[in-house]
Amino acid sequence: MTIRIGILGYGNLGRGVELAIRHCPDMELAGVFTRRDPASLQTVTGANVYSMEQAETMQDAIDVMILCGGSATDLPEQTPKFAAMYNVVDSFDTHAKIPEHFATVDAAAKASGKTAIISTGWDPGMFSLNRVLMQAILPQGDTYTFWGKGVSQGHSDAIRRLDGVKDARQYTIPVESALEAVRNGEAPQLTTRQKHLRECYVVAEEGADLARIEYEIVTMPNYFADYDTTVHFISEEELKANHSGIPHGGFVIHSGKTGVNNENTHVIEYALKLDSNPEFTASVLVAYARAAYGMHKDGITGCQTVFDVAPRYLIPVSNEQLRKEML
Amino acid sequence: MTIRIGILGYGNLGRGVELAIRHCPDMELAGVFTRRDPASLQTVTGANVYSMEQAETMQDAIDVMILCGGSATDLPEQTPKFAAMYNVVDSFDTHAKIPEHFATVDAAAKASGKTAIISTGWDPGMFSLNRVLMQAILPQGDTYTFWGKGVSQGHSDAIRRLDGVKDARQYTIPVESALEAVRNGEAPQLTTRQKHLRECYVVAEEGADLARIEYEIVTMPNYFADYDTTVHFISEEELKANHSGIPHGGFVIHSGKTGVNNENTHVIEYALKLDSNPEFTASVLVAYARAAYGMHKDGITGCQTVFDVAPRYLIPVSNEQLRKEML
Repeated sequence: MTIRIGILGYGNLGRGVELAIRHCPDMELAGVFTRRDPASLQTVTGANVYSMEQAETMQDAIDVMILCGGSATDLPEQTPKFAAMYNVVDSFDTHAKIPEHFATVDAAAKASGKTAIISTGWDPGMFSLNRVLMQAILPQGDTYTFWGKGVSQGHSDAIRRLDGVKDARQYTIPVESALEAVRNGEAPQLTTRQKHLRECYVVAEEGADLARIEYEIVTMPNYFADYDTTVHFISEEELKANHSGIPHGGFVIHSGKTGVNNENTHVIEYALKLDSNPEFTASVLVAYARAAYGMHKDGITGCQTVFDVAPRYLIPVSNEQLRKEML
Repeated sequence: MTIRIGILGYGNLGRGVELAIRHCPDMELAGVFTRRDPASLQTVTGANVYSMEQAETMQDAIDVMILCGGSATDLPEQTPKFAAMYNVVDSFDTHAKIPEHFATVDAAAKASGKTAIISTGWDPGMFSLNRVLMQAILPQGDTYTFWGKGVSQGHSDAIRRLDGVKDARQYTIPVESALEAVRNGEAPQLTTRQKHLRECYVVAEEGADLARIEYEIVTMPNYFADYDTTVHFISEEELKANHSGIPHGGFVIHSGKTGVNNENTHVIEYALKLDSNPEFTASVLVAYARAAYGMHKDGITGCQTVFDVAPRYLIPVSNEQLRKEML
């Protein structure tokens, strides 16, 4: 019995899920659902393509629907809608709106008796899981999250909206000395500026005022003003050759104290270095799709998060084998 | 309602549990149980001390018994015995005997309707958990475990048994170049010798044959022969001044591939740097004691491992607050 997966939304993330499933012998891809004309869409692996409307009638063919839309407008609507029909997994990542998203998805999944796992991926997702484990083990301690080196889509878009900018790529980079202080258990107080740098590669339009563009970037409130920001003007060819990947990653580091007088320091670090942000996020989604399937079989329904999932649900290995080989 | 904890066995680990509980406002220490004469034992925090026999009659006063004995002879007998009376947690770490230990503990806990969590700590324990998460997310990949820099008790003991050796301390040290190759996603094939170094600090008896001792160490089968081993002869004072701590730690690193032609590499790393091995292990035991209590309340009984525990059981924070603040 393989787990039959549906992919709803076919951008970078949906394509990543399609590719990740090939590495999972316990799964098969039942179909990709798109807003575009299905006939116009060529998938990487030749998977069947269906319209969004067809997603509402294929409950007999799909065990888990992986929702690959965006957090701004797609998922708030799609996750509760499809949790009424399928076990679902999403990577909803608007941190502030998670409680609200949870409530609507939970109501839908409880009513349908399905299992929904929201906000998987790496942050929220694996980083959240690690923050909880670290604080559970060493409550007398401080947790730090650093992001990068990686491409921030939102910040790249903000630069692209400026007058005279043709294209841009923005990298978020953790400050090495801050990382080191945290790793040494110094538990430093760090400002926004002390934690991350922002590096921008900008393709300007012919004749544009480069000084003005640079000034508008480094002083942009919320996005850049609170950071040390570097701007490099490069050619379109250079951007394409050297900055077309979507790498990302980051660090969750916790230092905590134990002992009679807190004399012992322990440092726990979880680090990700990802060549492709969407393909890694997709891989996490696929593991949690397996969990949604297994938890549903065990009668655990309603909305779940990474905090509710016992690790054994994520891997296609029997409990006996896990204990024997991986404990 | 606080969780009432019993500590069975009062060595370094039991003392670590006693200290860790002070950082847990949801817990109280109900008592320490010892094989020694209770009147002779002075605890760090002034906790009540009882005899082992009294541990068999205090079910009304204790919610979870944390078993702090050794894996060689104590836990194989104690964990099933006390799982028949209490929710229990142990740090059984004889990897090869885990399936057998699980079976006896599971039978006892199922019969009593109690919850037992075995083999917590960091390896087995947090390292095992991370190995499963990494392989679940990136099945097309390789996982490496490195230990150290840290004191190996077993290897230190092996040196102490040699003729002419008064005292010794052995450090296991990961080979930096091997760590780097793994972190770079090179997925190297590594021999035992290529992964770890062994460094020995030895106090010899007056007039002992140092060359003979060094030869016996570096050629000792199983313990040292397969490693590059360095031996330093030092004074008793120096050993005491510089090598009396029990630091440890290590790394679980996984590199995996995704993409159309596996063109993207992702590296996940989990690292521990611990000033005190027993105090960190104790902190993990305490978090899993909280989980044993919560899972028992939820009707999840029998023997569990870190693979069976949903992360939310480990931390004294409501699900709502977890989602709001830590996801």
